[in-house]
Amino acid sequence: MKLHNYFRSSASWRVRIGLALKGLSADYVSVHLQKNEQFAGAFAQRQVSHLVPALELDDGHWLSQSLAILEYLDETHPAPPLLPRDPFERAQVRALAMDIACDIHPINNLRVLRYLKSDLGHEQAQVDGWYRHWVATGLAIVEQRLAQTAGTFCFGDSPGLADCLLVPQVYNAQRFECPLDAYPTVMRINAACLALPAFADTRPEACPDAG
Amino acid sequence: MKLHNYFRSSASWRVRIGLALKGLSADYVSVHLQKNEQFAGAFAQRQVSHLVPALELDDGHWLSQSLAILEYLDETHPAPPLLPRDPFERAQVRALAMDIACDIHPINNLRVLRYLKSDLGHEQAQVDGWYRHWVATGLAIVEQRLAQTAGTFCFGDSPGLADCLLVPQVYNAQRFECPLDAYPTVMRINAACLALPAFADTRPEACPDAG
Repeated sequence: MKLHNYFRSSASWRVRIGLALKGLSADYVSVHLQKNEQFAGAFAQRQVSHLVPALELDDGHWLSQSLAILEYLDETHPAPPLLPRDPFERAQVRALAMDIACDIHPINNLRVLRYLKSDLGHEQAQVDGWYRHWVATGLAIVEQRLAQTAGTFCFGDSPGLADCLLVPQVYNAQRFECPLDAYPTVMRINAACLALPAFADTRPEACPDAG
Repeated sequence: MKLHNYFRSSASWRVRIGLALKGLSADYVSVHLQKNEQFAGAFAQRQVSHLVPALELDDGHWLSQSLAILEYLDETHPAPPLLPRDPFERAQVRALAMDIACDIHPINNLRVLRYLKSDLGHEQAQVDGWYRHWVATGLAIVEQRLAQTAGTFCFGDSPGLADCLLVPQVYNAQRFECPLDAYPTVMRINAACLALPAFADTRPEACPDAG
């Protein structure tokens, strides 16, 4: 497999974590977003959304959308599981994941921030305010949900799907200097995850295209 | 079951369609977003995100996030299926659903449009431009993906998960007068879906709180 991704893309990091938790390896193919490589060459032809990550399977098929890729990995490589077995618990974990994947990340994605600056003419300070507003709104929700589900990790005492999303989102929040004191459960779980190689060894700074 | 939802919320309509495709019924509980009912009373206490829909199960548990709810319904009531059986095909359908659920809808959600107007001071024309930009960007991606998956419906010849998301998104696009001529496959599938009672009978205008 090949993972087309970018060191600083948090959606990419989710998949790097999922692969590592499963003990799977994939060749790292860098798509440098700041250099606009997502709009050029073979990547742009195959990944019509121009968004990273994309997982290229050994048979040549491509998969997109980080959450869909993680579900695929969980279905094709069931151990260790990313989701619990009970349908209600699975829904709880997926809802946590989507609180981040739907309701925080897309609103703060690079293309949206570019639109705020270039098309709507906002200064960087207003863009940063936008970013921090949606992080604060979203992490407050996640923090409350975790009160119902968390053990050492987002759901119980094994890392899983929601943790794959939580840690990259916290990383983004820290990069944009969002205040995080109001989310003690989020931050405790983030620390527990980063003590594991699957999270620490796949972090942005450890990627070949980091710079 | 009770579905806490709002007639004009496209995420709510997704779940209404999924329930109908499965032949399931749920009591309709209206949460009037324009009257800010999402911030008050029992709903606000149980649904920490203040977003609709939420599915209240017969045992008193609540589920949130429309896609997580649809996956739950598919796991607990497998026939007829919302997802194909093959893992790669499942990932294709989920990716289509997430092209809408992650990359179009949240950026154009009510709370984001309110932020653009109230916090950033934009006129309605700029807000409409924002809305149409993300619909155009997103539906262009969906249209290209459908070239690989579509039959009568988004995936093959049975309605499923992606259709549950596509039809409400097209409805939103039409409400905001987005040009849709560039997406003939999207519009053909939208028409095929709306010929089915599961879609037509759950449309916003048919809801008890429509007005």
